[in-house]
Amino acid sequence: MAGKMKAAVFVEKGRIVLEEKPIPDVGPLDALIRITTTTICGTDVHILKGEYPVAKGLTIGHEPVGVIEKLGSAVTGYTEGQRVIAGAITPSGYSYACLCGCHSQDGAGTKHSFKAMGGWKFGNTIDGCQAEYVLVHDAMANLSPIPDGLTDEQVLMCPDIMSTGFSGAESGGIRVGDTVVVFALGPIGLCAVAGARLMGATTIIGVDHLPVRMEVARKMGCDHVVNFDDADPVEQIMALTDGRGVDVAIEALGTQGTFEAALRSIRPGGTLSSLGVYSTDLKIPLSAFSAGLGDNKIVTTLCPGGKERMRRLMNVCASGRVDLKPLVTHRYKLDQIEEAYDLFSHQRDGVLKVAITPN
Amino acid sequence: MAGKMKAAVFVEKGRIVLEEKPIPDVGPLDALIRITTTTICGTDVHILKGEYPVAKGLTIGHEPVGVIEKLGSAVTGYTEGQRVIAGAITPSGYSYACLCGCHSQDGAGTKHSFKAMGGWKFGNTIDGCQAEYVLVHDAMANLSPIPDGLTDEQVLMCPDIMSTGFSGAESGGIRVGDTVVVFALGPIGLCAVAGARLMGATTIIGVDHLPVRMEVARKMGCDHVVNFDDADPVEQIMALTDGRGVDVAIEALGTQGTFEAALRSIRPGGTLSSLGVYSTDLKIPLSAFSAGLGDNKIVTTLCPGGKERMRRLMNVCASGRVDLKPLVTHRYKLDQIEEAYDLFSHQRDGVLKVAITPN
Amino acid sequence: MAGKMKAAVFVEKGRIVLEEKPIPDVGPLDALIRITTTTICGTDVHILKGEYPVAKGLTIGHEPVGVIEKLGSAVTGYTEGQRVIAGAITPSGYSYACLCGCHSQDGAGTKHSFKAMGGWKFGNTIDGCQAEYVLVHDAMANLSPIPDGLTDEQVLMCPDIMSTGFSGAESGGIRVGDTVVVFALGPIGLCAVAGARLMGATTIIGVDHLPVRMEVARKMGCDHVVNFDDADPVEQIMALTDGRGVDVAIEALGTQGTFEAALRSIRPGGTLSSLGVYSTDLKIPLSAFSAGLGDNKIVTTLCPGGKERMRRLMNVCASGRVDLKPLVTHRYKLDQIEEAYDLFSHQRDGVLKVAITPN
Amino acid sequence: MAGKMKAAVFVEKGRIVLEEKPIPDVGPLDALIRITTTTICGTDVHILKGEYPVAKGLTIGHEPVGVIEKLGSAVTGYTEGQRVIAGAITPSGYSYACLCGCHSQDGAGTKHSFKAMGGWKFGNTIDGCQAEYVLVHDAMANLSPIPDGLTDEQVLMCPDIMSTGFSGAESGGIRVGDTVVVFALGPIGLCAVAGARLMGATTIIGVDHLPVRMEVARKMGCDHVVNFDDADPVEQIMALTDGRGVDVAIEALGTQGTFEAALRSIRPGGTLSSLGVYSTDLKIPLSAFSAGLGDNKIVTTLCPGGKERMRRLMNVCASGRVDLKPLVTHRYKLDQIEEAYDLFSHQRDGVLKVAITPN
Repeated sequence: MAGKMKAAVFVEKGRIVLEEKPIPDVGPLDALIRITTTTICGTDVHILKGEYPVAKGLTIGHEPVGVIEKLGSAVTGYTEGQRVIAGAITPSGYSYACLCGCHSQDGAGTKHSFKAMGGWKFGNTIDGCQAEYVLVHDAMANLSPIPDGLTDEQVLMCPDIMSTGFSGAESGGIRVGDTVVVFALGPIGLCAVAGARLMGATTIIGVDHLPVRMEVARKMGCDHVVNFDDADPVEQIMALTDGRGVDVAIEALGTQGTFEAALRSIRPGGTLSSLGVYSTDLKIPLSAFSAGLGDNKIVTTLCPGGKERMRRLMNVCASGRVDLKPLVTHRYKLDQIEEAYDLFSHQRDGVLKVAITPN
Repeated sequence: MAGKMKAAVFVEKGRIVLEEKPIPDVGPLDALIRITTTTICGTDVHILKGEYPVAKGLTIGHEPVGVIEKLGSAVTGYTEGQRVIAGAITPSGYSYACLCGCHSQDGAGTKHSFKAMGGWKFGNTIDGCQAEYVLVHDAMANLSPIPDGLTDEQVLMCPDIMSTGFSGAESGGIRVGDTVVVFALGPIGLCAVAGARLMGATTIIGVDHLPVRMEVARKMGCDHVVNFDDADPVEQIMALTDGRGVDVAIEALGTQGTFEAALRSIRPGGTLSSLGVYSTDLKIPLSAFSAGLGDNKIVTTLCPGGKERMRRLMNVCASGRVDLKPLVTHRYKLDQIEEAYDLFSHQRDGVLKVAITPN
Repeated sequence: MAGKMKAAVFVEKGRIVLEEKPIPDVGPLDALIRITTTTICGTDVHILKGEYPVAKGLTIGHEPVGVIEKLGSAVTGYTEGQRVIAGAITPSGYSYACLCGCHSQDGAGTKHSFKAMGGWKFGNTIDGCQAEYVLVHDAMANLSPIPDGLTDEQVLMCPDIMSTGFSGAESGGIRVGDTVVVFALGPIGLCAVAGARLMGATTIIGVDHLPVRMEVARKMGCDHVVNFDDADPVEQIMALTDGRGVDVAIEALGTQGTFEAALRSIRPGGTLSSLGVYSTDLKIPLSAFSAGLGDNKIVTTLCPGGKERMRRLMNVCASGRVDLKPLVTHRYKLDQIEEAYDLFSHQRDGVLKVAITPN
Repeated sequence: MAGKMKAAVFVEKGRIVLEEKPIPDVGPLDALIRITTTTICGTDVHILKGEYPVAKGLTIGHEPVGVIEKLGSAVTGYTEGQRVIAGAITPSGYSYACLCGCHSQDGAGTKHSFKAMGGWKFGNTIDGCQAEYVLVHDAMANLSPIPDGLTDEQVLMCPDIMSTGFSGAESGGIRVGDTVVVFALGPIGLCAVAGARLMGATTIIGVDHLPVRMEVARKMGCDHVVNFDDADPVEQIMALTDGRGVDVAIEALGTQGTFEAALRSIRPGGTLSSLGVYSTDLKIPLSAFSAGLGDNKIVTTLCPGGKERMRRLMNVCASGRVDLKPLVTHRYKLDQIEEAYDLFSHQRDGVLKVAITPN
């Protein structure tokens, strides 16, 4: 496999460029995947803009759908030619962190092995999947076969957006009959809405101001959608809940404004489940925090990965309980990926997510 | 029962004074308790200083140990003359909040009934127990008989300090083999140490700088005590944990400094369990928060109450697993309570907790 | 209120008869409810047949929908004339059992207060609601106002069938993406199907053999319905799950056959959530139990009650997430209740549940 | 490493014999461990007696303490010469079962990978550690370095007895202030006592009839020890708990008698945590099961393994919270292992556990 492949590479702030790179060698625990569909994430745009630092020359992308091209010598349980996905987060399975149930914070095989965000490797610390091929390390923990009958696009959200959005609902501990609010209705927020609905929330409130997103949110499970341009969203939420507040608030943007509004919208004893990627210090206003005596929880979650997580999410897609196809609004070939970045990073044309396929 | 009693009353900022008040009437769900021992809490000092507002004329105090003087007409299951305690937090048992498991945030019988800190009534929204008598509302949910063989002082910490400190360990979800740090080793922090030890933490680190407290902390279960005057406590904690950080950090003071240091001391995926009463906005530094992607939890807990909680805590005392007697360092008669406030509010003479008994 | 009312009374084995009884007096914590709709439960049929013993002269029925006629002197937070329901299980809220979170096993105000099935009082240990009026004790813990816009029939399943069926899913700990089987598709099993679907199970298998029930089960959320007359149901379940078994099996009948099949159908590490009322000893075959080393759980649940539970279930009805109206197949006036018992106890005419309304 | 080693091999029912075998080859994910101390388990006696079937020629033993002799080519994070242990259960870390949190039921890399007891491999499906060397598969998930300062004997219980006994307490969900009973005070029951105490149970009752075990049980944390020869143990437990029953009962033997007594001893809403290895069908008497309506749980647990579990248990040993050295009552050289089996299988001479060291 001494050939070459095309890959979207971070060159410098402002430039992600399609280049030729060698197809990687396959170690004993690895698998080489030929990419059949991938996508661009908001995080990739942060990388493009230089807001999140990665090494120059790194291949970007962490949402792979493809076919097994070659298996490492120690990998069993798969066959070459199988259609598979891997999560954006690729835990080793064997670290102290993983064996402690903390797969996303998985460091190297050091003494204790917890590393903040350490499970996120593709397009962050190792080459990613906006390319013709991607090398998946610890393949037996991460390759998840695609059930028959599901198209690439039907599972394209599983590696990141769906796993992240759903985890907002799951980490929030949503129970049957709960009232839930989701702040920001981008792709992750929309998946959080779908996840909250799937877990039995009976009143789901979405907050945004873009008409397209508000409309999709209604289709994906929001009972109410609040436009924060109309009035203070917390006041609107309190009006909708008779002053009670919500059981769980999901933050899906990563700003002080949404974080603080989420905190103000939960009832005493409620939970703020935070998904956003923050870029500034956060403030917890005393008036929103009951002086620390409100029995509140603030939980954060990094996108769960691993093949069992992917299996479950693909089951959700296969069951028809949730339909995420409306999230794919635009399609490009790999050769057009710079164009795709341009559209996506400027959020033009009502884009939610793009699908990238080989030439 | 149309008599008079003595009670420590909030008069104005800086003045809590022993006055005569009528012994209260007993409604159908109430019980009148003759106080045999009570104590002063740090919160009472906040009231004294005008930092926490209560109504003028209110009797202060929320840690009652006593004897049932008179039972309401609808109260069953108790006998007059029984020795009992009640928690600082007195849930109704029947509100939506209580039936949802959120007893400390228990509002009135309104539609949804969640009220921030609503379960704290004694010496806050109704007359408290630094008096000869206290009226316990919803008596059947709150009166907990004292097991034979336990003295008043042995159970004096149960209503507040022990329940609060233990809840720091419990809400933190401490598991067997965890490493835990407790910030601030006052009475609540010391009880958090005892609670962490009782739940199976195997490395417990305390942080303070007062030699007396550091010494008591070692006796109550700390494996290491860090003096924050010696060096940055986070650096000391990281050194003690080989750079891993702790599984659970318990904050027991209520300042930005301890909150932030607690956040910085937890490992990825770890939990900050906050007990302190804050008086300012809090800041979450981005560098301590992994951009919101560290799978961290921040949980707050208001002292759990109710008779079942009290029963369990008194069982702990009776079992000898934990000995909280060292916390009672000074003793006063009710007539001397102003003197007791003076000592306690100035933290003179190595005081940890005072016991107040009738004249 | 010294009047008379009609009530369905247990006279002797084989006879539940409509009789005249005094309208009960209202104690300080009670509420008198005028029944507007009620129903008959399978348990009532066990009582009729003498299989479950109750006192002669007891009014039967534990599923009340009605209007507040009169409030006890100590009851606040309600108004006479309000439309309300109460659960089949009526916890006090203030017992040790309740404060321990174990509301359904709520005994009297004794020292520890746990009593097996003690929360089930209506039509068991106190007069029930197949009558013109029912007295609800501990009214503040149990009366739950009906949201505007919901009819009696829409909330008629909340007090028992829906709460019980849903608890099968909840106690089973169903997670997003789980595979679940429900054994027996009577009203409770059908509600378990609805509950499993509401919690995010993505493959739901029902087991029965009556065509009517199998058909309703598909409408209420089953992805597959297995007829146990066709072949061994465990074999059919294993075929549907590629030999893996299910994550959670819900037993909704109460026989050795369904219990054992449920146990055999779960994967290692799976959970058997049992709802059935058994009338014989049960056997756990060694071959179904991995010698006790399979990390399996067997959990049982008695219908959760209390006003917060009812509030949540009515929210589910109001949200339109679940539609239980198909369960009400027959309607009778109170004067016809003996006829209704005759139909229901013989399971004639495709009956699922009956609605009983005043004359 | 083409040498020979001595190993205790199952030859046929009644015969485990020390034989010469080749030292195994080391695959890329393996590690070869030179055993410095091991022990014999009750399960090994079942194998000896032919009650639990294993392949003829298999090396027995699943409790390894030793030194890394050779690391596989793909193993990182360890150094040869390091002192390590591995658990009796050796999960792969990467299977669906493991990634689902069900490490002990870990099958091969099949589609779903759950296999009952599949995590138990040493001395069951692959060669074990009653030998001079043992090959540890999936070494990075299983090798746990021994903290400085701990002797082999101090950690000898970690791989099985301590992990199993503690899991009885953990799976039972013991909370601070619980009342717990442990049925059968052999090594596992004694570790369950220690685990219950470590988790904050405040009344711990042990049941046995051998004076030696009853005495050790008191030292390891029992508040009461009941002799079942004196009277029905359930009656004794009810007397000790004022008729309330226990919150959690731990079964540590594997017989109908202890299982049934455990079930009868729990309060409504209580949990039976079963650790025993059963060899017959079990009966759940209706009278002990509240007709299935008692909100009871029956949970079973297979010894948790993996390096993180071992790390935590060794931390417990290092902390001095629990002292398991009294469990090692006899010591043998590997050449004497047949003699050790003879003593241990006949439970002579007050034996609890034996330590086996190289010649």
